[in-house]
Amino acid sequence: MAVTKIALIGTGLIGGSFALALREDDFDGEIIAAGRRESALQRAVDRGIAHRYTTDFQAAVREADLVFLAVPMLAMGSVLERIAPALRPDTIVTDGGSVKGSFERDVREHLSDLTHVVPGHPIAGTEMSGVESGFPTLYQNRRVILTPLPETAQRAINVVTGLWQQCGARVECLDVAHHDRVLAATSHLPHMLAFGLVDTLSTLQEREEIFRYAAGGFRDFTRIASGDPVMWRDIALTNREALLAMMDLLQSHMDTLRTAIDQGDSETIENIFINAKRSRDQFVG
Amino acid sequence: MAVTKIALIGTGLIGGSFALALREDDFDGEIIAAGRRESALQRAVDRGIAHRYTTDFQAAVREADLVFLAVPMLAMGSVLERIAPALRPDTIVTDGGSVKGSFERDVREHLSDLTHVVPGHPIAGTEMSGVESGFPTLYQNRRVILTPLPETAQRAINVVTGLWQQCGARVECLDVAHHDRVLAATSHLPHMLAFGLVDTLSTLQEREEIFRYAAGGFRDFTRIASGDPVMWRDIALTNREALLAMMDLLQSHMDTLRTAIDQGDSETIENIFINAKRSRDQFVG
Repeated sequence: MAVTKIALIGTGLIGGSFALALREDDFDGEIIAAGRRESALQRAVDRGIAHRYTTDFQAAVREADLVFLAVPMLAMGSVLERIAPALRPDTIVTDGGSVKGSFERDVREHLSDLTHVVPGHPIAGTEMSGVESGFPTLYQNRRVILTPLPETAQRAINVVTGLWQQCGARVECLDVAHHDRVLAATSHLPHMLAFGLVDTLSTLQEREEIFRYAAGGFRDFTRIASGDPVMWRDIALTNREALLAMMDLLQSHMDTLRTAIDQGDSETIENIFINAKRSRDQFVG
Repeated sequence: MAVTKIALIGTGLIGGSFALALREDDFDGEIIAAGRRESALQRAVDRGIAHRYTTDFQAAVREADLVFLAVPMLAMGSVLERIAPALRPDTIVTDGGSVKGSFERDVREHLSDLTHVVPGHPIAGTEMSGVESGFPTLYQNRRVILTPLPETAQRAINVVTGLWQQCGARVECLDVAHHDRVLAATSHLPHMLAFGLVDTLSTLQEREEIFRYAAGGFRDFTRIASGDPVMWRDIALTNREALLAMMDLLQSHMDTLRTAIDQGDSETIENIFINAKRSRDQFVG
């Protein structure tokens, strides 16, 4: 099945880059951006993200073969509710959201037929957001995780896989809960730490001095604290269970480290650092 | 006073880069590496870090106008003890260690005259270590903090300042305790978090999968967890008080965030993220 019309809801980093990558790959269909803010929609057209735009979500969806949702997690439900009446039975619905359990709950609540629902999550991003932030190579050689539902038809999975491959990505499938746990560990938890650290330092009296003497390591470490606050608020709230479990697990390890430092237990400290360095060098490179 | 002979103790990232930067800037004196491992010392000569080497610390120090100490913090004391009898009264002693309070305690314990002691700390680094890791541009446009003691002669400060400027660095002075507090916040605490996070994730059953789905944000966030375990163990132990205070302060902020996530308090979460993003964008850039 060839996709000829895509309704793009969300023209920021994830949605914008998806569209720009497809168009760079000579996608010969049409991309219609739907949204509320005309200024952003017009910029999306100007930037070549969409061929045209509308503020009428249902009109965009009615003519689409595929709907791509790239809005903050807590906006997914209301968008799905709004577009549901206009969806054709064979229109594929997919997304680029960071939490799959919450997206599954939303589609189950608002859509009656899940045959063509393909939840997805590209493991790619920068700390930028907004209509100016997308770029066509964001997904090159990056992984995209699809978390098909029991009802999802293989045909729909294949179509979405094909589009992501056109974007240069490698597609893999994971179970919803597994996805949310893995991403809580590698993405959501680090974001909480980076936001929490910078927030903490900003409350110190000598904060200007503190940031002035920050070196490259600090810049890298806190880069993700420049992410979009609303997007990350939504991720924290919608992946709450897995995230809190990871925060607690980390806390118990940090408590161990804290005790070792306090007691001058150099062997425990060194072992933690050696294990961390070995793991990072081995797995992350 | 012109420095014509430098005894370099420690030929890793900090010491090696110091020497390479000086020699690239046509330093016309001689750099003598002193250490225990001949293989590393020979590599230091091969790499152009030192003109020659010796395993006799006292011989190197005896003929030096300036001694540069770049060893892990807990090795400073024993090196100072070893070289003390051979130091000439006018030989400048400076270092590149990350904790200044501990260096001050060490020099007070082992040296009788502190007139020519200039504690220093270049705010620069990578996660690399060892004799192969130094490079001449490490200090270009980076800050170097000197923490002179009450006894330190201005003349000695001027000499050390001049050498760091030859390396391309900008030199500033701070109070010892202030330095240790600022660095605990911007460098030592982030390292504990990065080591602690990677250590935690490495204990999870699905660790390979977890690291496999880590994106660029995770790579940046955890880069500092590839740092030298011994060096960071020593920093944690020697800056214990300031570091524990920062760990506890962060913990109280993380507890607030955890509670907000648990209770679905989206306003508190968003405010923390907004404040962090604003601070980082403003101060770090």
